[in-house]
Amino acid sequence: MNPAQPHTPCPASDPTVTLLWDLLQRASVTPDDAGCQELLAARLSAAGFSCESMPFAEVSNLWARRGDSGPLLCFAGHTDVVPPGDDSQWLSDPFVPEIRDGNLYARGAADMKCGLAAMIVAIEQFVAAHPEHAGSIAMLITSDEEGPARNGTLKVVETLSARGESIDWCVLGEPSSLNTLGDTVRNGRRGSLSGILTVHGVQGHVAYPQLADNPIRRFAPVLAELHNTVWDEGNAHFPPTSFQVVKLEAGAGAVNVTPSSLSARFNFRYSTEWTFQSLQDRVEEIFSRYDIDYDLKWHLSGEPFLTAPGKLTDAVSAAIEEVTGTVTELSTGGGTSDGRFISPAGADVVELGVVNDSIHKVNEHVRLADLPELTAIYRRVIERLLLPEA
Amino acid sequence: MNPAQPHTPCPASDPTVTLLWDLLQRASVTPDDAGCQELLAARLSAAGFSCESMPFAEVSNLWARRGDSGPLLCFAGHTDVVPPGDDSQWLSDPFVPEIRDGNLYARGAADMKCGLAAMIVAIEQFVAAHPEHAGSIAMLITSDEEGPARNGTLKVVETLSARGESIDWCVLGEPSSLNTLGDTVRNGRRGSLSGILTVHGVQGHVAYPQLADNPIRRFAPVLAELHNTVWDEGNAHFPPTSFQVVKLEAGAGAVNVTPSSLSARFNFRYSTEWTFQSLQDRVEEIFSRYDIDYDLKWHLSGEPFLTAPGKLTDAVSAAIEEVTGTVTELSTGGGTSDGRFISPAGADVVELGVVNDSIHKVNEHVRLADLPELTAIYRRVIERLLLPEA
Repeated sequence: MNPAQPHTPCPASDPTVTLLWDLLQRASVTPDDAGCQELLAARLSAAGFSCESMPFAEVSNLWARRGDSGPLLCFAGHTDVVPPGDDSQWLSDPFVPEIRDGNLYARGAADMKCGLAAMIVAIEQFVAAHPEHAGSIAMLITSDEEGPARNGTLKVVETLSARGESIDWCVLGEPSSLNTLGDTVRNGRRGSLSGILTVHGVQGHVAYPQLADNPIRRFAPVLAELHNTVWDEGNAHFPPTSFQVVKLEAGAGAVNVTPSSLSARFNFRYSTEWTFQSLQDRVEEIFSRYDIDYDLKWHLSGEPFLTAPGKLTDAVSAAIEEVTGTVTELSTGGGTSDGRFISPAGADVVELGVVNDSIHKVNEHVRLADLPELTAIYRRVIERLLLPEA
Repeated sequence: MNPAQPHTPCPASDPTVTLLWDLLQRASVTPDDAGCQELLAARLSAAGFSCESMPFAEVSNLWARRGDSGPLLCFAGHTDVVPPGDDSQWLSDPFVPEIRDGNLYARGAADMKCGLAAMIVAIEQFVAAHPEHAGSIAMLITSDEEGPARNGTLKVVETLSARGESIDWCVLGEPSSLNTLGDTVRNGRRGSLSGILTVHGVQGHVAYPQLADNPIRRFAPVLAELHNTVWDEGNAHFPPTSFQVVKLEAGAGAVNVTPSSLSARFNFRYSTEWTFQSLQDRVEEIFSRYDIDYDLKWHLSGEPFLTAPGKLTDAVSAAIEEVTGTVTELSTGGGTSDGRFISPAGADVVELGVVNDSIHKVNEHVRLADLPELTAIYRRVIERLLLPEA
């Protein structure tokens, strides 16, 4: 690896801002790590971590650990970012960080290179102050969280499990906050299940519908029933299960010809009231009550998971309140994250990071003032979990 | 005009087959007449017709008339053909006629150059036998029936109306027969009304449906109700009104993004139980009962028309039974035709032609034996309408 040298000097002196500045100039669009992990590994090695590169296919992964004993507190995250989108709508180059009005702008500023920078600095400060800390600290970093995510965190967790290495607590640096830093921590995620549907019909001239079989006509009542169904009311930890059709397509191209097939793709974000199997069964039961010739393939992105309130959530909530004065809310809303891969191996997992309102959009940014605060929160979390007296 | 010379000599001696053979070698894909009308005009001039070319934009039209007095019997049709489609599926060149197993194969063989050829020969025979016939005979020929049809028959009829020239009876040579020549004559057509729909929503991440507004969700119940509606039961002359969606499209491209809009196109083939206005009103009433933000543009291809049983249908039915022994059935089924433009000016209109099972398909063909019979039928129709003693 030969990471590009940063071109623009950082105008700030805060160590988190300085590290983030370097990371943001590496255009690490999934699955390209662009040298970010080498930079982080150098810092972690200097802090006494043993660093292990775990590449799978085109994905770069880093597993770094300091200490041999339990409990193991792991910080996790990703170096990859989503593509910039429409360049012309960016007010500054997405891969040249720029500070305007107290915000730092660049692709990945919020999701989630700021989280990585804050973790590194927090760890460095903690290790310097407590070189003989109890337990272990680790970092699990991938370059494919925004993509297919098959050769990233999932494979690292499988590797760790195979050799008997298990994570007790995991803090993911995903941007979890809604309006102010720390107002929301995610302690679980809904499941995500997609259906890829093809409805078969028989093409024909629109003037002779009796000789054709219009798949749109076949699907219309099923589509209505899928939308009318109240899947659940949610529960104490999860919002109601939602059903959304993201694609619908049918048409032969000519205005006087009815289509031979219809294709659709839909997605469930589902609560722990369902498993992927019970949800599939319910959908197929609905289809079975209609006269419709169809193929339905399923894709499971992740089952729902939940980290019950306990030592990890207490440490996180207390750290946030100490640093920011904010009483945090535990939530299971939002999209999927790599927590779905870490939780099933037995770890308690929370996501704690900056405000997410600009992520995946043009002019992504993070509040400059939030960066030292996030670092302080992470440091207090480590202290609360690994220092008995804290 | 400099029509291409036929390359392949016709193996048959029947005059209708010979003329059809020449027409089929002219690749007159809409709106290109490819010299067909010049050929027909030469034959009609020789038979005492005054021939008037009426081009509009890129469309060739011919109005030919013999006689000044009424009643006026008009034969109407089109020289244009639909494109051949997949050349590799044709067993012979679509523009080089070929006889196999008693059928003549070429694009336009059935729809409807055979009708034009039979009309010309029937007229020539009638005029030769009855040079002093009562009333007038005309031909109205266009090169845009299969296309937008805006500069074809419609414009010719408007021109005739403007100068006070009106058609009493019109026989269109469209392929009206289902199984055997003359089994079906069309004495009207359903109306055709299309709706071009856009449903507006707000794009969003599939995990945050509360921040988005999925147009598929908005449209689903409307789509179901449109399909559930029994528009009418038809009436004595028309089959039930049919509703078909020919296109449906929504999707932002990414699997985790809900679409910002949905587009659809649908078509009604409607009976005389409705006017286009009452049908539009009914559809808009359905939409108004749902919370949906939409634009709906309408395109009227033609109102329904009906030629009541009378002198023209009697002449046609009798001619068919005399020549073929078949008792014909009057029908208003099938697609639109240029009859929609001729009927409103006050003419009685019927469509009488060969079997339509191969039209608009590869390997289009006509039964060779039907060609002299169709000529004989057309000739008997002229005799019955213009010779008092017939």
